[in-house]
Amino acid sequence: MMPPALPTFDDLLDAAARIAPHARVTPVLRSHALDELSGAQLHFKAEPLQRSGAFKFRGACNAVWSLDETAARRGVVTHSSGNHGAALALASATRGIACHVVVPEGAVEAKLASIRRYGAILHRCAAGIAAREAMCAQVQADTGAELVHPYTDARVIAGQGTAAMELINHTGPLDALVIPVGGGGLASGTAIAAAALAPQCKVFAAEPEGAADTARSLALGRHDVDFVPDTICDGLRGSLGEPNFAILRDHGVQAIVVDDAATTAAMRLLWQVLKLIVEPSSAIALAAVLQQPERFAGQRVGLILSGGNVDLDALPWSAP
Amino acid sequence: MMPPALPTFDDLLDAAARIAPHARVTPVLRSHALDELSGAQLHFKAEPLQRSGAFKFRGACNAVWSLDETAARRGVVTHSSGNHGAALALASATRGIACHVVVPEGAVEAKLASIRRYGAILHRCAAGIAAREAMCAQVQADTGAELVHPYTDARVIAGQGTAAMELINHTGPLDALVIPVGGGGLASGTAIAAAALAPQCKVFAAEPEGAADTARSLALGRHDVDFVPDTICDGLRGSLGEPNFAILRDHGVQAIVVDDAATTAAMRLLWQVLKLIVEPSSAIALAAVLQQPERFAGQRVGLILSGGNVDLDALPWSAP
Repeated sequence: MMPPALPTFDDLLDAAARIAPHARVTPVLRSHALDELSGAQLHFKAEPLQRSGAFKFRGACNAVWSLDETAARRGVVTHSSGNHGAALALASATRGIACHVVVPEGAVEAKLASIRRYGAILHRCAAGIAAREAMCAQVQADTGAELVHPYTDARVIAGQGTAAMELINHTGPLDALVIPVGGGGLASGTAIAAAALAPQCKVFAAEPEGAADTARSLALGRHDVDFVPDTICDGLRGSLGEPNFAILRDHGVQAIVVDDAATTAAMRLLWQVLKLIVEPSSAIALAAVLQQPERFAGQRVGLILSGGNVDLDALPWSAP
Repeated sequence: MMPPALPTFDDLLDAAARIAPHARVTPVLRSHALDELSGAQLHFKAEPLQRSGAFKFRGACNAVWSLDETAARRGVVTHSSGNHGAALALASATRGIACHVVVPEGAVEAKLASIRRYGAILHRCAAGIAAREAMCAQVQADTGAELVHPYTDARVIAGQGTAAMELINHTGPLDALVIPVGGGGLASGTAIAAAALAPQCKVFAAEPEGAADTARSLALGRHDVDFVPDTICDGLRGSLGEPNFAILRDHGVQAIVVDDAATTAAMRLLWQVLKLIVEPSSAIALAAVLQQPERFAGQRVGLILSGGNVDLDALPWSAP
């Protein structure tokens, strides 16, 4: 059974029920100091405390547990060597099914280690998107495994939307929600959740200057993702997916473009004040709020801190 | 009104009610990876997420809100330039009363900044305990402020005990509780909570090799705190208080001595896996469990991660 092209709020409700036995309801953190600094009331959804260290587990878990028995027996495959790969591996482990992850030559060993630790089967291929897609097709042909794309898959989008659902259920209606955007899985899931649960809530997608295809696509009114990423936000280097673009456009999501220096400063601030390890791709949400104080002044603002998978030996503020 | 010499479980219940409007119920974190590594089932009470970044806010808050109106108007005073000073300053701010903190020459500016940020009045004095106590007495004489000792004060001990109360209420009965010990405020409060809520639960106090006065005192059966501290656990350099010793001895608390290298490794592991910023003085609890796997094998173990106030520019694993 193919998933529907675009998920609805009902799909998010189903996802929430489906992942409940496996995923964590992460806490919402507050800080007087950050409220004062921003002039707004900030509610931080702490997804670094999610299983696998990132919100990605939600979408992967929903996809894995959406499979019927026959499909499940054949397993799943993806070509992400980052947080989605690890999340899909862990989600597959919760159901006891095979997970294949296609990784390009030159992928960072530390990232592969956690994918391997969760029991996934690694398939090496040459660098470049063409080689990865070819290897994915090969694995699908050989095993019958189902492809779970990191952000265009409707089951993944619905799963990612459960983070905003939980946040709004916890805080009550918010004036604004700020999330990072890369491929757009979290952003589009959040837009769907907010439209249903808090229709007055504006959704802002924080995007690095060096990978600002979402801002450009929304400004142009068409999907335009021809760019070479240059940003420390390693989780946001991918290009916005087509269905994700359609959802963001249709829900009036606005992009806020942030430079890496502001993101690094926000990351350090979150570590220092919230005591939470967040990766640059998460800290960008706070950087976006601090960059536009007039936009958020006095508002109740939800921020999804998306993940905490960082290399502790290469912190951006200790770089020369 | 003088506080009683030793708090009872009723005092802990009162403290829990008293601090509820101000303190956070911190989350309890779990990790499959750390369960596997330890061979036990670990439940981490995340006090870095407490206000002021440490459990110290509990005891300070209980002390401040225990004062009658007349005493409150005169304010409070202490001579801790570490987490207790900041916690007392913040607790005083929640009641709108004056807080005096005596700080010795040479105290770390970064620590003083957060005490000042919470609105406390700093009083400088010469280094050494005699000068600090003299200055404290002077402030008391001048202002009528009430002394709130960082760990011997019964109101402080009762407040610190609320962390273990919350943990046990959350997890159900535990086989063991592991907490760090310095002056013994948290350790003695935990012992009182465990005895009332989970009488089968053994309490272990993790202590740095370079400040092992609790282990020695418990072994000798008398309060023996003549030592010069040498440890990276800056929160555990103080000597065990007398009432704290009596409580630990009477409750059969056992000490586990840990060297700094094991504590540093545990700290890094907690950052990497739990995504929580913990200070060395907190990580020592996990180091103690990993050091004695046979003691905790298969058990349900609660660990109180006491605080997350670290200098991000001087991480122990990036030292040469």
